[in-house]
Amino acid sequence: MARPREFDEKEALAAIRSTFWDRGYSATSVDDLVRATGLGKGSLYGAFGTKREMFVRALSEYCVAALTFAEARLHGDDAGALGRLHAYVGVMVKGIVNSKRGCLLAKAIAELAGDDPEIDRMVSGFYRRYEDVLAGVIRQSKPSRKAGDDDEAQRQASLLVAVLRGLESMGKGGVPAATLHGIAETALAALR
Amino acid sequence: MARPREFDEKEALAAIRSTFWDRGYSATSVDDLVRATGLGKGSLYGAFGTKREMFVRALSEYCVAALTFAEARLHGDDAGALGRLHAYVGVMVKGIVNSKRGCLLAKAIAELAGDDPEIDRMVSGFYRRYEDVLAGVIRQSKPSRKAGDDDEAQRQASLLVAVLRGLESMGKGGVPAATLHGIAETALAALR
Repeated sequence: MARPREFDEKEALAAIRSTFWDRGYSATSVDDLVRATGLGKGSLYGAFGTKREMFVRALSEYCVAALTFAEARLHGDDAGALGRLHAYVGVMVKGIVNSKRGCLLAKAIAELAGDDPEIDRMVSGFYRRYEDVLAGVIRQSKPSRKAGDDDEAQRQASLLVAVLRGLESMGKGGVPAATLHGIAETALAALR
Repeated sequence: MARPREFDEKEALAAIRSTFWDRGYSATSVDDLVRATGLGKGSLYGAFGTKREMFVRALSEYCVAALTFAEARLHGDDAGALGRLHAYVGVMVKGIVNSKRGCLLAKAIAELAGDDPEIDRMVSGFYRRYEDVLAGVIRQSKPSRKAGDDDEAQRQASLLVAVLRGLESMGKGGVPAATLHGIAETALAALR
């Protein structure tokens, strides 16, 4: 069979990400990635490096996409800040409830974090930026700007990150949607 | 080499659990379990069933141990309830910070939940009981028993479960200990 010399990099990356997402890192073989992308082993290695490098790239793009989504949903004027935050958390919980495969980041952490310094750096960098995005909109939502509000917003944002991560794990573990939405509401009510 | 006819079941189970814990389900081969337990393949299958059955048993015992630990730490009189809850959460966060391999349940969820109804049932059963244990001590900690306290305690307990799950994932992902302790404190302060 003739091997195509040119291929769509984005499409190949999407196939790589999707394979890791479904199967995890260890359980994915290079042959799985060859099958998923339709590329020859040589082209695959040539374009994307080792299996580990492909995973790091897929995970990195996943984190960037998650942050870009959060920023797009949360960015806006002060008056709408609390509304945007509630809407964003609602969308995230719905995503958790409807997702069959869960979150690639959560899977990567469970499987690989602690064993790989590059992945650890990526994950903790992601959490820092995610917390900052949430802290920004929480700060905007405070009706009166008083001393201590910034610290409080940062603390509340890091709590919200933990809650959202926990909801992801609980949702993947089969906890009912109503329970997850209830937890999100309790967490948001505590921001006031 | 002579194969021992008798073996310590508890020791073998501990070796099985430890292997799954380090490597995950898919990446663990039956040969790995043979090596870890020192048993022959026939004895291993004879005593514990298939690889999947060994995993389900290891995970189930892990969940029972986690609940037993929570109950032992949280059980007591009303006056000490808040103190026990704070101490328990502190111990859990320290465990997260010091653990190199993270939580077997979190790993099992990330890898297998949604694909296996038996594991899903085990996980959601665990979360329900865990929430009830936490709700019990939160209820005890309310200074005045008013109408609505029970519902509030249950809501706060399910939020706390999500926070603890999220902290586990964040800790495994390399978020600094101080951030994790801070999040736990914010969550506990919100109970009052």
